[in-house]
Amino acid sequence: MANRPIREDRLWADIEELATFTEPDRPWTRRAFSPLYVEGRELVKARMEAAGLAVRIDAGGNLIGRREGAKAALGALVVGSHTDTVPGGGRFDGIVGVAAGLEIARVLEERAIALDHAFEVYDCLAEEVSPYGLSCVGSRAVAGLLDEMMLARVDDEGETLRDGITRMGGDADGRASARRDDVACYLELHIEQGPVLESERLDVGIVTAIAGITRVMVEVEGRADHAGTTPMHLRADALVVAAEIVLAIRRLAEERTRTGRGHFVATVGEARVLPNAANVVPQFVSLLVDIRAEKRSDCDQFLVDLTGEVEGLASRCQGVAGRVQPVSDNAPAPSDPALLADLRRAADEIGLSRRDMASGAGHDMAWFSRIAPAAMVFVPCLAGRSHCAEEWSDKGQIARGADLLFETLLIADKRLSAKQGI
Amino acid sequence: MANRPIREDRLWADIEELATFTEPDRPWTRRAFSPLYVEGRELVKARMEAAGLAVRIDAGGNLIGRREGAKAALGALVVGSHTDTVPGGGRFDGIVGVAAGLEIARVLEERAIALDHAFEVYDCLAEEVSPYGLSCVGSRAVAGLLDEMMLARVDDEGETLRDGITRMGGDADGRASARRDDVACYLELHIEQGPVLESERLDVGIVTAIAGITRVMVEVEGRADHAGTTPMHLRADALVVAAEIVLAIRRLAEERTRTGRGHFVATVGEARVLPNAANVVPQFVSLLVDIRAEKRSDCDQFLVDLTGEVEGLASRCQGVAGRVQPVSDNAPAPSDPALLADLRRAADEIGLSRRDMASGAGHDMAWFSRIAPAAMVFVPCLAGRSHCAEEWSDKGQIARGADLLFETLLIADKRLSAKQGI
Repeated sequence: MANRPIREDRLWADIEELATFTEPDRPWTRRAFSPLYVEGRELVKARMEAAGLAVRIDAGGNLIGRREGAKAALGALVVGSHTDTVPGGGRFDGIVGVAAGLEIARVLEERAIALDHAFEVYDCLAEEVSPYGLSCVGSRAVAGLLDEMMLARVDDEGETLRDGITRMGGDADGRASARRDDVACYLELHIEQGPVLESERLDVGIVTAIAGITRVMVEVEGRADHAGTTPMHLRADALVVAAEIVLAIRRLAEERTRTGRGHFVATVGEARVLPNAANVVPQFVSLLVDIRAEKRSDCDQFLVDLTGEVEGLASRCQGVAGRVQPVSDNAPAPSDPALLADLRRAADEIGLSRRDMASGAGHDMAWFSRIAPAAMVFVPCLAGRSHCAEEWSDKGQIARGADLLFETLLIADKRLSAKQGI
Repeated sequence: MANRPIREDRLWADIEELATFTEPDRPWTRRAFSPLYVEGRELVKARMEAAGLAVRIDAGGNLIGRREGAKAALGALVVGSHTDTVPGGGRFDGIVGVAAGLEIARVLEERAIALDHAFEVYDCLAEEVSPYGLSCVGSRAVAGLLDEMMLARVDDEGETLRDGITRMGGDADGRASARRDDVACYLELHIEQGPVLESERLDVGIVTAIAGITRVMVEVEGRADHAGTTPMHLRADALVVAAEIVLAIRRLAEERTRTGRGHFVATVGEARVLPNAANVVPQFVSLLVDIRAEKRSDCDQFLVDLTGEVEGLASRCQGVAGRVQPVSDNAPAPSDPALLADLRRAADEIGLSRRDMASGAGHDMAWFSRIAPAAMVFVPCLAGRSHCAEEWSDKGQIARGADLLFETLLIADKRLSAKQGI
């Protein structure tokens, strides 16, 4: 990779310098809307300016650096991600994508590359769940999907998200101006946050879709009996039936992974037992099931199968009832097929090993995909760890991902320009 | 039963009157150490006195009514139980046993029955878990097993159990005087708190032992992974393994019930999941297992089997470890064989349908059994419900149980007197 334009040391230095803006007792924490976050963004702003970008903060609180293109009538090629972290989160999630955008801007500038399209780097406001309980605040604004109910949310101090956005330099009431209809394409580089690329020793993952996230609550109602006096055969133990359901969910998810048409996972992450007392047979158990499906049909089929299992397992135990209740439902966000083709071609040209994969996690790209052709690139991360202090990705891996974005932008610039015929 | 000396209306009236001493918003609640509890005991004291008993409160805070016997050198036949309730508990648990003692005292008095032994009714202090976190406070004192560490426990207001006992009319420092070595036998009438007698349509259960209560914590350690990005086959999901363990516990308990030598039940009543977040594969699950065994050997074998299952199930899932940790261990308290024979003979003489059974729940009898021949009688309760507002037992069922105690006392009085040869 010695001849590639992306300079990995320069890219890595930005990542390391951003990591110094952390709560000292809880590395690496830089939550959106905090003073540390604002300080980190000052660094990003300085780097944008040094790369020759014109910097602004839009009404949605996104920090944006822009380089004009040769043909003013064409839209912008955007590279984006975020610089906020979860509490106790890592140095790479989001940051890598913004740092890649900065490095690409530097390369464009130092090589005086004339793109037909404008080029922009987005540091999106608050991609992680913010103190107001909302994620992807900035990219929602870009998609025109930040609404009054969201803005009325408050943090622990009682400040509204509306006022928080103002503190970040945005203007919630003028947020219509943050909506873009001139994005020619959006690309995002991100660590995988999963173990697949590392275990398959691949350079990059080309993200075909952000999986839909559907959550349902499985509720099992049994009967509270004295744990000492009620013989085993006269019990209606909600936890025993819930345990069977946990195993059924595992089995159904494995089946769907094998037989479905894309990424599929299902997880029971939260369980609640009532009364949860040592000497009482459990009366009630709820299981929060998180389902991520690249294809909507896989999620639908899983829910049909799950409902059948829950009803069947409950009915086999007298005195127990089971039900599946909807909690939330976000559809998958597919990547743009033409942009995927650009990515594959670029990866092959520069010799990166690759695979297609879906993202099981949400990203800013899901919101940009509502208003523009969009896609993502994943790079491997150590043991799939993320949202923790141990989160790690290698300098060279990140640089290879940035290389792919750079090469793809050159390809997409030409393709989209030709398509517009301007 | 028309010719039996026990008068069910009189017995029932005491139960109903005691039920009026309840927190109005949370029937039926009369917790030990509360003003309501003291008021209820004033009624019990008045009823004891009306039945001709000499009343005192011992150093352990037990309310005791005594009738002298014909032979002063013999000890006392004791009928006891308690009048405190759990929060939101019922009108029968404990109360039935004290009311039976009162009715027996009245019958002895009105029929001028001369027993060789003294006869005593014990209203034991705080059988249920008290605000100080300790159960069976009074009966522990009778057994000489109330220690300094227990007395130093505090309630939510910071009062020590030591001071609480003083408020109840006892004297913790003088508690040695509450210890009895002159109890000829102890009998306790109680509702079953389980569904067996009702489902088998029997009048009484003759309690052969109070099951031992052994608690262990099963801990499953897996790996926290992102629930959206980690493929099913690369997970070390602690909840999935814990679910298999819950089902193994159920299966092992059912096997032991079939093949064991007495009452056996095992329950996972409490479960804890960490981090318990919708989008994180569970890293850690703990299961609190409550094991009640009439025979110590059944408990021991179950623990051997359980440990094998936990280790086996954990080892089958890479990245998961499982262990079984001891929490607490109380040995079974067997009833006195001679007293059991008296009970069976008495039941047959007065025509009560009966079965032997172990008590899965703890009772004051477990502590009296440390210092005297002891046994219990169960009467059926509605649907096995207990420790709840719906707890119910019929007037006639309770009266039949009291009848059995009365008849057994007459038999035991003669048998024990003859044995002593006084």
